[in-house]
Parts: sequence; structure tokens; C-alpha cells
Amino acid sequence: MNKNNEEIITNLKSSGFDSMFIYDPYNIKYISGFYPTSFAYLVIGDEPVLYVNSIDKPEAEKQSQIKTEDIRKLSEIKDMLSGSIAVESTLDFNFLKYLTGDISSLKSSDAIVKQRMIKTNSEIENIRKSIDIASKSIKEIDFTSTEKYAAATLEFNMSINGSNYPAFDTIVASGENSASAHATPTLKRVETPIVVDFGARYDHYCCDITRTFIDSERQQEIFDIVAEAQKAAIDTVDVGVKCSDVDMAARNVIDEYGYGEYFIHSTGHSFGLDIHEEPNISYNNDNILKENMIITVEPGIYIPGEFGVRIEDDVLVSKNSEVLTSKLEKQLDFTL
Amino acid sequence: MNKNNEEIITNLKSSGFDSMFIYDPYNIKYISGFYPTSFAYLVIGDEPVLYVNSIDKPEAEKQSQIKTEDIRKLSEIKDMLSGSIAVESTLDFNFLKYLTGDISSLKSSDAIVKQRMIKTNSEIENIRKSIDIASKSIKEIDFTSTEKYAAATLEFNMSINGSNYPAFDTIVASGENSASAHATPTLKRVETPIVVDFGARYDHYCCDITRTFIDSERQQEIFDIVAEAQKAAIDTVDVGVKCSDVDMAARNVIDEYGYGEYFIHSTGHSFGLDIHEEPNISYNNDNILKENMIITVEPGIYIPGEFGVRIEDDVLVSKNSEVLTSKLEKQLDFTL
Repeated sequence: MNKNNEEIITNLKSSGFDSMFIYDPYNIKYISGFYPTSFAYLVIGDEPVLYVNSIDKPEAEKQSQIKTEDIRKLSEIKDMLSGSIAVESTLDFNFLKYLTGDISSLKSSDAIVKQRMIKTNSEIENIRKSIDIASKSIKEIDFTSTEKYAAATLEFNMSINGSNYPAFDTIVASGENSASAHATPTLKRVETPIVVDFGARYDHYCCDITRTFIDSERQQEIFDIVAEAQKAAIDTVDVGVKCSDVDMAARNVIDEYGYGEYFIHSTGHSFGLDIHEEPNISYNNDNILKENMIITVEPGIYIPGEFGVRIEDDVLVSKNSEVLTSKLEKQLDFTL
Repeated sequence: MNKNNEEIITNLKSSGFDSMFIYDPYNIKYISGFYPTSFAYLVIGDEPVLYVNSIDKPEAEKQSQIKTEDIRKLSEIKDMLSGSIAVESTLDFNFLKYLTGDISSLKSSDAIVKQRMIKTNSEIENIRKSIDIASKSIKEIDFTSTEKYAAATLEFNMSINGSNYPAFDTIVASGENSASAHATPTLKRVETPIVVDFGARYDHYCCDITRTFIDSERQQEIFDIVAEAQKAAIDTVDVGVKCSDVDMAARNVIDEYGYGEYFIHSTGHSFGLDIHEEPNISYNNDNILKENMIITVEPGIYIPGEFGVRIEDDVLVSKNSEVLTSKLEKQLDFTL
């Protein structure tokens, strides 16, 4: 164990703590050397152990200087900790309730979360403007240099086209890197396929779009399966439909073609002021879609060691659901 | 009150809550219309009330659609809430402890916070690289268009020069906008003075620099006072010195020239993986500076309706404290 981590454990024990639960990504980076791009936590007992999900696993195993394991259910967290438990001062109510049976007089309310699920007309208008900015910006993207350069160009374009700031860290993942769903842009020269996952913010309202640029028959084959899966899911979106039905519509198509094990994330999520809002479009969410929810539909196939393809559009739920990103073609021209 | 907020209150009451404490900036934006750039919270009782600090006050009063007041001490929050109190599921331990007397078996530990205060050699190296990236990037900045364009150019430069992503949202505040310490870049054509507050991240480690571009005698007069205040503060930085002594060194100079009321923030803060870490360099923090802390020293004068000037450098605390940003001249050439 490195000296820093030894000193942290010594300080913990001398303050009367037996274990600590850590969730802040910078604290995780500080202790493990790995900066998570997705849900992750770290537990300090006799030694620190990092827990990451499948999206982060390959990079975490390369970069983490401490023991790294698969993430476990929130309900199991308490059993992983022992004795007097320390938490970060920034740890949130969601986690605290899993770590302690009693948060005294407080309860969390979902009144705002619920209200934010259904978009008002002015919110929908902001999201449309955000989509316009993002759609315009990707057409001017420069793929002639590195992934990092392409991502920086796209973020610059979005900014001068009126975005407050990126909705999230722009992904440009090319060649083998595209097999990772949460790849960070590298200094590698862009090759194909190129997965570009990006979003602008207009008046702080997000959009979330992915386009994959392809140029071989094999890439086209996988692209067509993902496109068929996405179409099946989008066709399922309707007022009164279960979120899980939308997810399964995409999942079934990819399963039929034999690529089910390579579709490693949910089909989509809602967004608004936050890039991830309720409801999530996953196989185990039986909540019902309602009028004026806005969701992403973004199936993907990620073949380790080969490449990945993801196609993501934003859909306004209504009796005649509208693909808000339909003006942006599914296949765009590009030059390397 | 708008319909959205009425419905939130109805939902709260029907779930048995009497009041709610709100801290998430997007929830604040959703309810008030104002997106805070600094510490702020919102309380829902019979009506929603927004509480902001002095940095956000002018913009909040323009943009907020609900009652807006000066922020109160954390210890007073509990008295502002009544009956059964709701919180957000993301509310953190720091706040929960002010809202309830008992967080059961949990305590927060400062073991990691304390360890992160003292930078290791490899952390210092990362921060030096971050400063190199930021320093190189500002020399190529394009001021010939809008504030937004200049900020986007700077962020693009930092990205292609090797920054992961900006350490924080880049500030380019020109002309009268510079009188606001947390101005958001606008679509206004750049005029002078130009306050540029920016930072890169190398391996996720921040830097934090401000330069003010000036071109009149009046601007030079204020610039010289801020520079003198900054020099006094930097000269005070030493192992064993109180944080408050560094703050007061800058504050006293600005006071002497009669501009004390226009220096509206602390003199500096520590940074590392987070842009704000412990200790804070403020008049009421008597903690002691230790070897290998890294702090900003950033006094400023903000004259409402006229303009503002801030100069910010990063200092490594040691027996011979080192200004890490010294290679970047205090006054840089520019063209409008």
C-alpha cells in the first residue's frame, strides 16, 4: 500500500473509525489512481478496495493501484463496512440511508424529481434549441487530427453556437477505443469507426446525441443492427408504455442477431437540466412513460478488441411521439 | 407563484411535508429561474424563497422569479424550516447535520481532506503541468470577437494543449461585466478591462489563474493597487503563517487606498483535484499554512457600474514559497 493510503488509514483508526465509505470521484482518484466515469465507490477497511461497474472495469484494472472488484448492490454496502463507519462530508442522503437505519427526522422527497420528469413547453423549447446547437456543431467537426482535437473542436463549436457549456464530457472514441462505452478522447489519430457522444446546453437544458461514423462492410453490418434495434425501441415509445418495454424492444433485436452480450447498458434515460433524470429506460424499470417526458434511445454494440457502435436520439413522449433529433441524419459524411 | 411551483408545494404537502430544503443548483434553477454560480440554497415553506450570497445577488435579483434574500448562516437553516422537513436525495452529510440533531451511527471523517491538503511530489508535478498548459493557452487567446468566443478559444486551446477538461467554467468578463466577480461570458463584443479567470486540468489536477487586460490610466490605477495587495499577500505566505494573515495582508493594502468595500471575496483558496480545497485563505480562518500546500492568491477590486480587476497566482507553500505561475507575466499584450 502506498504511503498516502497508509496515512489515511492511520488517521481513520486514530479517530476511532474502523472503516470508511468513499463516493466522491476525486477521492476515488486520489486513493486508487483511477478516475471513474460511471457509478463507482471505494471502501476502506484493512485495505482500500475500489468497486466499479462493467463500463469502467477495463480501464480501472489498468489504472487502479489498489484492489479492484465488481460493484455490488447498494443494499450490500452496509455489510462491506464494519465497526464505526466514516463517510465523506459530501456523501448524500441516498447513500446515508443505506449506511444507517435512521436519518432521524428527515426524509427525502421526490416532489421535485417527479415534477421535473414532465417537461413544460418552455423546457421543451430549450431542449429543441440545445439540439439545434449540437446538430449544427457536429457538421463542422474536424476529424483530421486526434480524438482529443475532434472533441475540442466540437465543444468549441457548441460554445460559439450558443451552448452554456457541454452537457457532459464529449466522447470521441475511434477504432478499438469505440468498444468502450465511456471512452475518454485520446491523443491517438482518429480512425474508424468513430463514436461521437455529445450534448449542448441551452439555458442550462441538455441534449444528448450519439452518431457513429463508419466506413467498412463489417462496421455497416453492426451499424444496421443497432439502427434496427433503435428503430424498434423508438417505435415502442408511447404514452402509457412501460420503460422496460422500450428497453426490451431494442434488446430483443440485438439478441436475435446474437450480439446481446455486447449491449452492456440501458437503452436510454430521461434528461433535462440534468443529463440523467428519471425515468431510466432499462429492462427492470416498469414505470410508465407519460406525455412530455423526454428520453434518449441509444442502443449500442461493443465488441471487445474490435470496435463499438452506438446511435442515440432524443424522443419527446406523446401520443405521436416525436424524434427531436430527426433533422440530424443517422449517417453523416466525414473525412479523415 | 407559477403553476410548476404550486404543484411541487401541493405534492409536498400531500406527502405530509411542511417544508423543504433545496441545494442542488439545477433544482434551484428549476424553481427560481436562476442558476447559482456560488453558494446558494432555496427553502420551500408557504412559498419558495431563494437565498444567495453577495457575488450572485445582482444577477439573482434580475433573473429569479421568486423572492430572493441574502444567504444566512448554516446554523440558522434549521430555524427557517418548520414541521416535517423534506430534503433532496442528493443532499449531503454536511447539510443533513444542520437539519437534524442525529445522523445515527455515522460520522464524517476528515482523514482524506487532511491528507489532500498537503500535496505529494507527483501532485505538485501534475499541478505544474496544468499551469504550463493554461499559461501557454492564454497567450493564443482571441479577443477580437465576443466574451463567449474568447472563453471558447481559451478552453479549446487548453484542451488541445493537454488539459482533461476546464478546471471550472472559464470567465471572460469585459468592460462593465468585469465588476461582477463570477460573470458568465456573454455575446457582447470584448471591451476593456478584460478579466480572464481560467484553469486547466492535467491528470485531473487543476490550476487557477486570473489575468486582467487593461488599457486606460484609471484601469492601471486600480490594477496597481490590486497588484500591490497581491504582492503583500504573497510575501506573507510562509510555513507556520495563519491563513487569515495572508488574507489580511491583501485586504489592508486595498483598505488603505479606500477600496476595501469593493474587495468582496476571500483572498484565496487551496486546490488540487478539486478546485476548492481546504484551507480557505479568508480573514476568519486561523488555520496554519504547512509545507506543500498549494494556494491561490487572488485579491480583486469590483466597482459596481464601472469595472473590476483581479490578479490570481498559484503559490506553493514552503520555507521559500514559490509562485508556480510566475512564468506567466502579470500584464499580457492583447489586441481587440
